Amino acid sequence: MKTKYAIGIDIGGTNTVIGLVDNKGNLLAERSLKTGDYETPEPFVKEICKLIPEMTSGKDFDGIGIGAPNGNFYNGTIEYAANLKWKGLVELRKLFSACFDCPIYVTNDANAAAIGEMVFGGARGMKHFSVITLGTGVGSGIVVDGKLLYGSDGFAGEFGHIIYEYDGRPCGCGRKGCLETYASAGGIRTTYLQIAKERGIVVDPDITSKYIHEKALAQDEVALETFDYTAKILGRKLADLVAIFSPEAIFLFGGPVKAGDLLLTPMKKYMEENMLQVFKGKVKLEVSSLMNKNAAILGAAALVFGER
Amino acid sequence: MKTKYAIGIDIGGTNTVIGLVDNKGNLLAERSLKTGDYETPEPFVKEICKLIPEMTSGKDFDGIGIGAPNGNFYNGTIEYAANLKWKGLVELRKLFSACFDCPIYVTNDANAAAIGEMVFGGARGMKHFSVITLGTGVGSGIVVDGKLLYGSDGFAGEFGHIIYEYDGRPCGCGRKGCLETYASAGGIRTTYLQIAKERGIVVDPDITSKYIHEKALAQDEVALETFDYTAKILGRKLADLVAIFSPEAIFLFGGPVKAGDLLLTPMKKYMEENMLQVFKGKVKLEVSSLMNKNAAILGAAALVFGER
Repeated sequence: MKTKYAIGIDIGGTNTVIGLVDNKGNLLAERSLKTGDYETPEPFVKEICKLIPEMTSGKDFDGIGIGAPNGNFYNGTIEYAANLKWKGLVELRKLFSACFDCPIYVTNDANAAAIGEMVFGGARGMKHFSVITLGTGVGSGIVVDGKLLYGSDGFAGEFGHIIYEYDGRPCGCGRKGCLETYASAGGIRTTYLQIAKERGIVVDPDITSKYIHEKALAQDEVALETFDYTAKILGRKLADLVAIFSPEAIFLFGGPVKAGDLLLTPMKKYMEENMLQVFKGKVKLEVSSLMNKNAAILGAAALVFGER
Repeated sequence: MKTKYAIGIDIGGTNTVIGLVDNKGNLLAERSLKTGDYETPEPFVKEICKLIPEMTSGKDFDGIGIGAPNGNFYNGTIEYAANLKWKGLVELRKLFSACFDCPIYVTNDANAAAIGEMVFGGARGMKHFSVITLGTGVGSGIVVDGKLLYGSDGFAGEFGHIIYEYDGRPCGCGRKGCLETYASAGGIRTTYLQIAKERGIVVDPDITSKYIHEKALAQDEVALETFDYTAKILGRKLADLVAIFSPEAIFLFGGPVKAGDLLLTPMKKYMEENMLQVFKGKVKLEVSSLMNKNAAILGAAALVFGER
């Protein structure tokens, strides 16, 4: 197989990381900058366009893949991203096209993770699978028949915003009870604090996913109950996802997933309990195999190599 | 456009209807038989294979499309259909292949309805839409990028079996609280009887969807409340469906949908109320344009003409 190269860019609210990636999934060079330092996207893109030739040192690359919050694949834009300074529509593909004459792809973080899983990870050879990302929010990259599900406008896959509990916890999207308010890092923290409060245990309100994970390892009951509660909600909603998509596998990605079996074992149990008979025992539930790699960059670069 | 012909077969628990359909959606000939008269599928298929040449009177046809409960497109089988006498796996495609040397397609009723909508109905030209069928059960045919969503094993699209209420109404699938237990014809009847009982109104337990529709037309409060309750549940779950698929349109099909705006107006309201901001006002919600035609046969025949 001839070695090919692509640029993968992961735009986050705080940092942006740019990588040179080959088609075997090796990250050959990396640069980063502070997203928040740029009031507008133009100088930000200009800076990246300067960094890329430094990294490639003359190597030809096949394209640029970009994962960004609210990235729209169809339009090549970032649209109304809550976590970025740049408001409204950002014509990302257009801005990069002014510097580079190559294919440029934009998508959101969860979709990039799914493409990464398909090209470099545990979903190689699969035609039907989903990647669920648990982090600041809850996202999903859903692959149907070997292609990402984008829907009519590029915004499909908002699994974090299906409702778990009507009139439940307030969500950043303005509604109530979204899955995200229970299964994101912040949602899990809220659950921990609520359970601790019910039991009269005083806890620092600034605890992290890592703290809860460590507590659970030490058999702390509040932490174990938090994982059980989270696993139940996710297991139930994944059972619904299976009823609709019938995937071969579901991969989990993100900070809270570092808890591994502490979260996955009960999640599997609840997912199986809640599944339709015809799907029971058929669907793999696994931690993303890219979890401890530079998954965001690999995923973005995979947009260039893979089917989209 | 050259006229082409296909055979469409709609296998139901009670009746099976066979039609000769052209590629403009005209039903040119029709036969039927009682599904329940056949203890095994072999004589049933044999009988249909005798009827087909009678109907076509020598016309060439491009293929046979079959819509059946639990029809599996990948395998060409009926698999463990609760409403048929034939248990286990029925090798439908194989049985028909022994009589006819042409492409033979098998799918379930809701998928056939979706293909019918795409080829002959309101979804012509659409790449992303869903058909929701309300009847004895609740089913869905989901089209992604112009193709039916079958998932890894052919059983995707079980929208009727996502859970609306945990520990809710008992479902025929063995679980509790499935959407189907609220939004099927039987579910709507249960709601009507519950509301009537709460109000101390005595009602014949054998009422039908049609009865509730007529009562609602006469401004009966129990009937109107029944539609509102049903519309709220469906509106909420359709909002979730939109968050995942971002379709252009959702079409409704089946007996309860004959109530038209009595059901659709509140359903639209609840769907919009529950949708993520980015989807509001974008997704059409309509009665299937094949509602008053021989939709099941047209849909089955459309399997031959359309993308699948």
